[in-house]
Amino acid sequence: MSTLPYDPDRLAACAAEIIANTRELAALRLTPATSSNFSMRLDERHAAITVSGRDKGKLGEADIMVVDFAGHAVGTDQRPSAETVLHTQLYARLPEVGCVLHTHSLAQTLASRLYAGAGHIRFEDYELIKAFRGQDTHDTFMDVAVLANSQCIPTLAAQVDVLLDQGPMWGYLIDGHGMYAWGRDMAEARRHLEAFEFLINCELEMRKLRP
Amino acid sequence: MSTLPYDPDRLAACAAEIIANTRELAALRLTPATSSNFSMRLDERHAAITVSGRDKGKLGEADIMVVDFAGHAVGTDQRPSAETVLHTQLYARLPEVGCVLHTHSLAQTLASRLYAGAGHIRFEDYELIKAFRGQDTHDTFMDVAVLANSQCIPTLAAQVDVLLDQGPMWGYLIDGHGMYAWGRDMAEARRHLEAFEFLINCELEMRKLRP
Amino acid sequence: MSTLPYDPDRLAACAAEIIANTRELAALRLTPATSSNFSMRLDERHAAITVSGRDKGKLGEADIMVVDFAGHAVGTDQRPSAETVLHTQLYARLPEVGCVLHTHSLAQTLASRLYAGAGHIRFEDYELIKAFRGQDTHDTFMDVAVLANSQCIPTLAAQVDVLLDQGPMWGYLIDGHGMYAWGRDMAEARRHLEAFEFLINCELEMRKLRP
Amino acid sequence: MSTLPYDPDRLAACAAEIIANTRELAALRLTPATSSNFSMRLDERHAAITVSGRDKGKLGEADIMVVDFAGHAVGTDQRPSAETVLHTQLYARLPEVGCVLHTHSLAQTLASRLYAGAGHIRFEDYELIKAFRGQDTHDTFMDVAVLANSQCIPTLAAQVDVLLDQGPMWGYLIDGHGMYAWGRDMAEARRHLEAFEFLINCELEMRKLRP
Repeated sequence: MSTLPYDPDRLAACAAEIIANTRELAALRLTPATSSNFSMRLDERHAAITVSGRDKGKLGEADIMVVDFAGHAVGTDQRPSAETVLHTQLYARLPEVGCVLHTHSLAQTLASRLYAGAGHIRFEDYELIKAFRGQDTHDTFMDVAVLANSQCIPTLAAQVDVLLDQGPMWGYLIDGHGMYAWGRDMAEARRHLEAFEFLINCELEMRKLRP
Repeated sequence: MSTLPYDPDRLAACAAEIIANTRELAALRLTPATSSNFSMRLDERHAAITVSGRDKGKLGEADIMVVDFAGHAVGTDQRPSAETVLHTQLYARLPEVGCVLHTHSLAQTLASRLYAGAGHIRFEDYELIKAFRGQDTHDTFMDVAVLANSQCIPTLAAQVDVLLDQGPMWGYLIDGHGMYAWGRDMAEARRHLEAFEFLINCELEMRKLRP
Repeated sequence: MSTLPYDPDRLAACAAEIIANTRELAALRLTPATSSNFSMRLDERHAAITVSGRDKGKLGEADIMVVDFAGHAVGTDQRPSAETVLHTQLYARLPEVGCVLHTHSLAQTLASRLYAGAGHIRFEDYELIKAFRGQDTHDTFMDVAVLANSQCIPTLAAQVDVLLDQGPMWGYLIDGHGMYAWGRDMAEARRHLEAFEFLINCELEMRKLRP
Repeated sequence: MSTLPYDPDRLAACAAEIIANTRELAALRLTPATSSNFSMRLDERHAAITVSGRDKGKLGEADIMVVDFAGHAVGTDQRPSAETVLHTQLYARLPEVGCVLHTHSLAQTLASRLYAGAGHIRFEDYELIKAFRGQDTHDTFMDVAVLANSQCIPTLAAQVDVLLDQGPMWGYLIDGHGMYAWGRDMAEARRHLEAFEFLINCELEMRKLRP
């Protein structure tokens, strides 16, 4: 009898997975002051995403909503975050992406400020580069883009589209703001996010430690 | 039959909320060595506040007392902290303030020492500035005042009054001491406190990281 | 019928308090690699102390033993730590001391290395100085002695005796090693330890932050 | 009736111990992004080891497999990590080794980068040197080797063999990668790992703190 354009069982499963993982990410201090948002693909036209402005350490089912890939709310009056289209553009363009995590750690914010001028931060010769899908050697480098922080989300989305044209990537930073990371599913997105966070911290600490 | 000048049900609800939140703040290392104190507005003349000198990670109902806005104990022999009037001056002057949090993190103490000379610490172009009520852009700056640490609390209170005359604000630092942050309710006060703590840490780390 | 020279009920109560508090201190990273030891006064001739070499995060009743104030085991074949007399000299000399905590945090070790040459680390104008018993103003300074690390415990004990001759104190550091802190009871000893740890971290961070 | 070449009860006991300890090590941030692996000796020809690529904070029994000392899977189709022989070479050569822990903390990675040129990191005059088996004084130094990171595991294993020829040791670093630490049993391996981690952090912080 449901007239919903998406599968409610799939939504329930995704909501539970988002809630459980978001609590863990909040405990890791990745979501200060109700910032950050998290989503999972429901199908070829819809995603589940956290409602804007909630304390990420205390989410419940009512804090997860459905949006289409244009970023509009579906079957609810709740307001999606202005940044929703930065999630949905990835689902729309990349069929293999199943989960997008936008976080806001201290290290991500610092790195975005320090490397905004260069336009990217480079990771080189770290074993943990192999944590990213498709990487099978540490003997290489990986550049993560840093975008200028624009209040205009379509401008940011257009910049991300240009980056995606240049080849596969698993995340980017926005200046003064935080990180977007993604993967085929929640486990892979979290592995990528954790590797980015670790490597960013390595680069920041090396700046302090090198004579 | 109660002759109490405040609503005991409101007190019980506020006490429970203060206790639960104070435990979380203690676990985040914001209340070292029994420092810090926390309050909520009961009505137009009274506030509930933590009793002085208790371990903030282990508060019970007996550790919450009632004060009037002159900072005097109401209906109890317990001693309010000397700093109580720094809470109550906010309730007395600003009807929308419902919760005041005074904490003492390492970062707050360091920033207060480093920026006492300048009189303020500035946050500029951080996305998290939008975590403060009334801020809808990151493309701005926010100055947080640093007051000299006086043993004379009325002197501090008078300085805060002067700051409040200058426009809306959500917190200030005291040199060598810690931070006061507030909001309409506990959730907003905690969001403001968490944003201050994050932005202070950003500024401290940037001092170490910039060449 | 007990022929024990101490009150077994008092021992049971102290053991429970030591175990519970030691777990919390281990979780705070104050006891790396089975280091550190903790004691409470039983009476005018005995103390309960942790057995040497145990994982401080997983203590049980069998990990607490009784010693006399000469540092000898009482009513047990268990081996007391070589450092036991650094605890018992405080109980023997200072009747008001009820609890001694010896910890080994990263900050304590670093400060002991950096300030061993000066012989002390100074805390000045910090509000948290008021966390120490007998201090009622922040507008002062406190020097914490740093002793050379000697394998000869009686030598260390003699140096501590000289320090105690000079006036009241609540703790000291040993170079490359860690801290001793104490108080009238467990709560006060922990408050003092937490204040020392906080102030040491302040001084270390200020070295990194000041231009 | 079992035709397994090892004792299944011993495997079950080791698996339980590995799972419990790996969860604790993951919570301490020693295993980012599914990196790291952990093993225990089963007998004179077999070891239990974590399956490659799992989230170390959420291991179950199915995530522990058996290998022989040549690094081949025994009684299972699961794939052992490429690094398995760095575990088994220790069991094969050193009969007293009962547990090997390979971790990947931020500090281990940073130290491996900073000291790869020197070939080792030196710990000197730290009390915690006494946490290593066979060390009974702090008045000494300990050098921990840093190996170049090779994709060729047999090359790494050969380098470790040369180091072991030079005398007793309890761990080594690999550049850009992390640490191997071991002991007679899980408790000793963890004590050694915790001491290495503490001392590495001491050396890194001293680089920042010394004028």
